Amino acid sequence: MSHPVDRVLRERAARVIPGGMYGHQAVAALPEGYPQFFTRAEGPWLWDTDGNLLLDFMCAYGPQLFGYANADIDRAYVEQLHAGDAMTGPSPLIVDLAEAMVGMISHADWAMFCKNGSDATTMALMVARAHTGRNGIVRAAGAYHGSQPWCNPRPRGIAPTDQAGQHVCAYNDVTSLEAAVKAAGTDLAAIFASPYRHDVFVDQAEPSHEYARRARELADETGALLIVDEVRAGFRMARDCSWSLLKVAPDLSCWGKAIANGHPISALMGSEKARGAAEKIYATGSYWFAAAAMAASLATLNLIRTTDYLERIIRLGEMLRVGLDARAAARGFKLRQTGPAQMPLILFDNDPDMRLGYFWSARMVAHGVYVHPWHNMFLSAAMTDANIEFALDAAEQSFSELADAAPRLPPNTRYPGPRKG
Amino acid sequence: MSHPVDRVLRERAARVIPGGMYGHQAVAALPEGYPQFFTRAEGPWLWDTDGNLLLDFMCAYGPQLFGYANADIDRAYVEQLHAGDAMTGPSPLIVDLAEAMVGMISHADWAMFCKNGSDATTMALMVARAHTGRNGIVRAAGAYHGSQPWCNPRPRGIAPTDQAGQHVCAYNDVTSLEAAVKAAGTDLAAIFASPYRHDVFVDQAEPSHEYARRARELADETGALLIVDEVRAGFRMARDCSWSLLKVAPDLSCWGKAIANGHPISALMGSEKARGAAEKIYATGSYWFAAAAMAASLATLNLIRTTDYLERIIRLGEMLRVGLDARAAARGFKLRQTGPAQMPLILFDNDPDMRLGYFWSARMVAHGVYVHPWHNMFLSAAMTDANIEFALDAAEQSFSELADAAPRLPPNTRYPGPRKG
Repeated sequence: MSHPVDRVLRERAARVIPGGMYGHQAVAALPEGYPQFFTRAEGPWLWDTDGNLLLDFMCAYGPQLFGYANADIDRAYVEQLHAGDAMTGPSPLIVDLAEAMVGMISHADWAMFCKNGSDATTMALMVARAHTGRNGIVRAAGAYHGSQPWCNPRPRGIAPTDQAGQHVCAYNDVTSLEAAVKAAGTDLAAIFASPYRHDVFVDQAEPSHEYARRARELADETGALLIVDEVRAGFRMARDCSWSLLKVAPDLSCWGKAIANGHPISALMGSEKARGAAEKIYATGSYWFAAAAMAASLATLNLIRTTDYLERIIRLGEMLRVGLDARAAARGFKLRQTGPAQMPLILFDNDPDMRLGYFWSARMVAHGVYVHPWHNMFLSAAMTDANIEFALDAAEQSFSELADAAPRLPPNTRYPGPRKG
Repeated sequence: MSHPVDRVLRERAARVIPGGMYGHQAVAALPEGYPQFFTRAEGPWLWDTDGNLLLDFMCAYGPQLFGYANADIDRAYVEQLHAGDAMTGPSPLIVDLAEAMVGMISHADWAMFCKNGSDATTMALMVARAHTGRNGIVRAAGAYHGSQPWCNPRPRGIAPTDQAGQHVCAYNDVTSLEAAVKAAGTDLAAIFASPYRHDVFVDQAEPSHEYARRARELADETGALLIVDEVRAGFRMARDCSWSLLKVAPDLSCWGKAIANGHPISALMGSEKARGAAEKIYATGSYWFAAAAMAASLATLNLIRTTDYLERIIRLGEMLRVGLDARAAARGFKLRQTGPAQMPLILFDNDPDMRLGYFWSARMVAHGVYVHPWHNMFLSAAMTDANIEFALDAAEQSFSELADAAPRLPPNTRYPGPRKG
């Protein structure tokens, strides 16, 4: 797999884009050999600019749930685009969509739509502050809730005051959660939680019932609001809020990515208790009320309600997991496959600088399968058993190549290491 | 003009959307008789849900520059949507678009794309902080730079620390600007400026050369970055940064709304000096690298470069302004029409609670012309001389109706009053 077109594009990009590319889709922290640019996507497939075809286990970092260029969803988008998209007011679709989401998310009585996942988490914070009249936050160390200054995971360009009043706990550690809530004292506005621990670089973890229940109890005891950030995992765990599986209802939940299969829309969902506060905050954006993405979201929610997409991606994920374990073991490697099977993270045991994972991932890409060495992946309902077999064949080859190369692999200088705090 | 369908929608919305609607497109602070929901838009026209046709002088609050459902721009969007939109990496269009914007914005050497105008202003702040290692901001009182916590114009849900280190000045007042910079002391990271004063509720004002030059000098003297927030006015003042008209080059400029004719994309543009800091910040979003909006933006920029859209909207704006003044005077009213003619704000003299403006605006809507009583409006290149004549005919009727009603108008309880701070 060669990338001459990609290389020329990177040279042009380096002149007019800081660092040549920025944000979560920059490949600087990925193994060499990953293409930066793509020209086409259909179903589970991606084409890079050099015409290489890739089975994509990142799904655009989540948004793509029913396959790229899904005909039903994109038709809904285009028809509404021609009728009216960003107008001087919303279309009736904002009401239809709010009703549809409220009908699906059992804890929620109302919806507000926005564009970024960060918009939804930021609005959640504002609603919690308006509801309580307090400012403090408890969240899990290493959890990602967006790139706004209050939640940005890196220090550059962030003022110390932007993250004032934040208290971190260890995910799934009840004692640590209780200590963080205690540290916040009388200023606690919100407890943020991810549906499960899907931090980058480290093993994923499902929350215990006890942890989720305790978060709910602590919110009730303190008067703070409990917020579940579903942006990444939403609708890949359940057809409801992910914590409905644990029988714990948050006050607010934040949605994005998969809710419109890649069309730009996100949402804050809230319970009756938080409605008054939600009415008081000022939150808006130029494109938030555009109708075409709402039409696409309605079509996506219809597929979520009426198809077996969820059972399908779970089954395919398990098929992938079992198959990978067997093929790794056959070459003497032990994988740490964590997270829900439909949102897998694949790490190698005994791989502190991820040189094994980087080499293997790069070989997977070379064999036509886009995997990520340190970020959770995503399965889509456009995938088939044959796609998983294709991925497992590529994996078998890649493990074999890794077995040959492993003794001589140099230290991995591209691995950025786990995030702090 | 009646709104039975709109009324039913509002009742449904009140159950599932806080306040029935939120953000800048909520009509709660507009005169009674404004429809909340729209079903269709084409060229300069909007249709509300009851089938009433409106000539729209809000242009979706700015984004629509070449008419709703512009065929060239929407075709570019749809073709790219079918090829690939939100993918696991950007398409080559991000490079094309960065090159196109850098080619047009004379102060800029690089571009970063995002979704909301707020994303761009927040990234500008982060770049300035990363560049200087300082945190403070100088901005004009009442200027809008988005709804993120650091710039939100209302207090609910905002922690005091979110807006720490901010020093306000009076727009266009050099002495006040100097005092704010002095107050920021050694902690000044950025001076924010709107291209002109386009605050809501109050007369608009173009910046003096002296004010703009002094802002540049103060940034240079202190090492802070000068940021021009073009989100609202960009490409309606010039085919370059608006302050190019004043021969003042900022370090950063923020773009949105009109850059893709309503398709969701915004941008931060920066000079070479700020590139290193821009490389260091972490800023990203799930949909930021989606290709279809970039294709639409390239098509929009092509129309900006190759058509007389700017001269056209200026000429039509002046035609509207002169015509409104004459028709108001004929009925004994004096208007305060401020701002560039192509982004007019129309206030009535001697109208402290805006009862005259509210009544007249509601009559304009009833006669099929959507105007805003306290927010600047926007002309689009889809408008024609005949559209302006249509608006002036509606205005003549509306002034006549206002003249009859004015002596008995009750106090205006819907007017929210100007923003503080």
